[in-house]
Amino acid sequence: MALIVQKYGGSSVADAEKIRNVARRIGRGRASGNDMVVVVSAMGHTTDELLALAQQMTSQPDEREMDVLLSTGEIVSSTLMAMALKSDGYPAVSLTGMQAGILTDSRHSKARIKSVDPQRIRGELEKGNVVIVAGFQGVTDGMDTTTLGRGGSDTTAVALAASLGAAVCEIYSDVEGVLSADPRIVPDAVKLSKIGYEEMLELATYGAKVMAPRAVELGQVYDMPILVASSRSDAPGTLICREDLMEIRNRVSGIAQDTNVAKITVAGVSDHPGTAQSIFVPLAEANVSVDTIVQNAGSDGVTDLTFTVVRSDLAKALSIVKGVSQELGTDRVVSDETLAKVSIVGTGMQNSPGYAAKMFQTLYKEDINIQLITTSEIRITCIISEARAEDAVRALHRAFEVEFRQSVQD
Amino acid sequence: MALIVQKYGGSSVADAEKIRNVARRIGRGRASGNDMVVVVSAMGHTTDELLALAQQMTSQPDEREMDVLLSTGEIVSSTLMAMALKSDGYPAVSLTGMQAGILTDSRHSKARIKSVDPQRIRGELEKGNVVIVAGFQGVTDGMDTTTLGRGGSDTTAVALAASLGAAVCEIYSDVEGVLSADPRIVPDAVKLSKIGYEEMLELATYGAKVMAPRAVELGQVYDMPILVASSRSDAPGTLICREDLMEIRNRVSGIAQDTNVAKITVAGVSDHPGTAQSIFVPLAEANVSVDTIVQNAGSDGVTDLTFTVVRSDLAKALSIVKGVSQELGTDRVVSDETLAKVSIVGTGMQNSPGYAAKMFQTLYKEDINIQLITTSEIRITCIISEARAEDAVRALHRAFEVEFRQSVQD
Repeated sequence: MALIVQKYGGSSVADAEKIRNVARRIGRGRASGNDMVVVVSAMGHTTDELLALAQQMTSQPDEREMDVLLSTGEIVSSTLMAMALKSDGYPAVSLTGMQAGILTDSRHSKARIKSVDPQRIRGELEKGNVVIVAGFQGVTDGMDTTTLGRGGSDTTAVALAASLGAAVCEIYSDVEGVLSADPRIVPDAVKLSKIGYEEMLELATYGAKVMAPRAVELGQVYDMPILVASSRSDAPGTLICREDLMEIRNRVSGIAQDTNVAKITVAGVSDHPGTAQSIFVPLAEANVSVDTIVQNAGSDGVTDLTFTVVRSDLAKALSIVKGVSQELGTDRVVSDETLAKVSIVGTGMQNSPGYAAKMFQTLYKEDINIQLITTSEIRITCIISEARAEDAVRALHRAFEVEFRQSVQD
Repeated sequence: MALIVQKYGGSSVADAEKIRNVARRIGRGRASGNDMVVVVSAMGHTTDELLALAQQMTSQPDEREMDVLLSTGEIVSSTLMAMALKSDGYPAVSLTGMQAGILTDSRHSKARIKSVDPQRIRGELEKGNVVIVAGFQGVTDGMDTTTLGRGGSDTTAVALAASLGAAVCEIYSDVEGVLSADPRIVPDAVKLSKIGYEEMLELATYGAKVMAPRAVELGQVYDMPILVASSRSDAPGTLICREDLMEIRNRVSGIAQDTNVAKITVAGVSDHPGTAQSIFVPLAEANVSVDTIVQNAGSDGVTDLTFTVVRSDLAKALSIVKGVSQELGTDRVVSDETLAKVSIVGTGMQNSPGYAAKMFQTLYKEDINIQLITTSEIRITCIISEARAEDAVRALHRAFEVEFRQSVQD
């Protein structure tokens, strides 16, 4: 008899019929003798409807009140799920985030979980109940409702799985798992059977929107395996888990892309200490997140400094950079917002120079110019023209396809 | 600086514009320097929509889950009200029943308030907040959400007013106060400026659906004056309060009617001990509520026993009574479901025989036959043909009209 923690996303509980389908799924798990703790999101468009209501009251709704308002969406779906289970003959009880013991800080709309007190859940499991937990929410020390922000329900599920000592945390949505590339670009993208936490983080950050990065991070911290699968099929899904060091696969797991990229280059700045901080401190103060930064010092005492931002921040970033550029002895500030990032992600690539070479060669053969290159332990990223991004992803997927197929056979 | 507790019903907060209107009303109270605690119902049709959702899951939704589901309706309106107030510049905070300290028993769907711990509300008032409380709900010792059933939000308001020591509890809805009769029958019904708790209970029970009787009872127990008024006007409304014994008005306050009445007569039963219990014990066991009971013992050792039930219970009651009638030595069981109750309500009528005489005389002049008569300390009720009920109400209102006018001048 295992303890299973599952999470079902908004599209899996979008209407009464879907909720009843999911209830049958949960019932099967219970009938097999498992203890079941199930986290649910709000039904389909509920959150949007609640946001619209708040907007009708005021253009700037109070965050504390907004959290209470939005939290009702998950409470509604949790009670409906419990009703459906009971009507199928499975004792069940819904719990709010507060009742489930999810204690958070008080940063409304983006609270972080401080701790989980699983006492109430344990008690309900001992009574034989399936426990349905309203996702996305918690409570402060002062008994005020908070919401966890983006990816909140995934985070609820992983936190509960960790605190209850579950064997695995199962995340169900309308995707069948983690694919080797975006299927809209690469129709024959391969579903991975397994991926490491860090690889998953790189894929997610770079555009494979399967699971909230913070939930993956939490899984990594608590070494909690996360199964990502479809609520509409019994296909096996993808297991996100620790890479066993003994078996580093030295292999590409997937191709990621991100087209929300703009580049700023400050050319001909003098190469001395303080240059970087004079640009990046004002940007940080203006709340502009800078992503990739590349500086190439030449031999003539001047250097080009290039960095990327998300496109919506470009105008603000440019005005700041132009403001400080004269102090830096240059007025050559140029920008380009028609760029994309394309990455190959995989554990152990750092130790195998062949991957970078193969990536660059593949892009060269497609006549795709590389503007910037950055690498991490498990990722090689090229910034290229947005117009060629999909060609690049398809070419790279073909080039590394054998490796994805191997992964599936693991 | 007074502490004012207000309650706004579902039709007063039915949409965004109405919520903003009510917020302005609350804001005016706050701007006058009062501490404000405001109880809100769910928006318009929210409760019906949530009930429909539950019905889509199962025809017999679990009561514990239903309570959690329904409680979200009031939570939503409370947060929207707090947002509207904040946007008008008044610091405000919404509290759930649990946060407001409303502790109940665990009879889901019809919980009773056990106690109120006003600590959190006091703290928020001290911080200068207007406190918006989600009505209709509470929490058990075990931290489970309950709902208070019919009239729940009125009850929340009166309980909070009592526990906070407010000077008055103001109940706002879409009626302007308590009228001397149903205005659909008596177009020139008079709004009463003042009415006693017991008079109000008689009027409410007999069909003047202005305020939940249990909330009136709670007001009576704690001697909390309740002002019933319209949320759409500044008209003064009706104050429900203790009748000062020194000033018993000896006066009719209103005319009530109820057409949901059926009568059963068991004729010719032998007049000995045990007759009544042999009929009413089986009815009680079948959960049939019996209202008026009249027995007229004759001199020949037999008696007629007549009682009334609500119409939906008539068939069930008849089959039970016919089953036991033979044991009682009779088979003369007759029923009539085309009846109505008409009552005059007023303190001190008991000591003034003139009221009953005037009532009977008025009905006689209208050629309305009286089938049954019952009286309480503050009420005289006649059961008559349903077809003549409205004529009776209008005639009685005319007959006692001078007294209503006097009441308004108090």
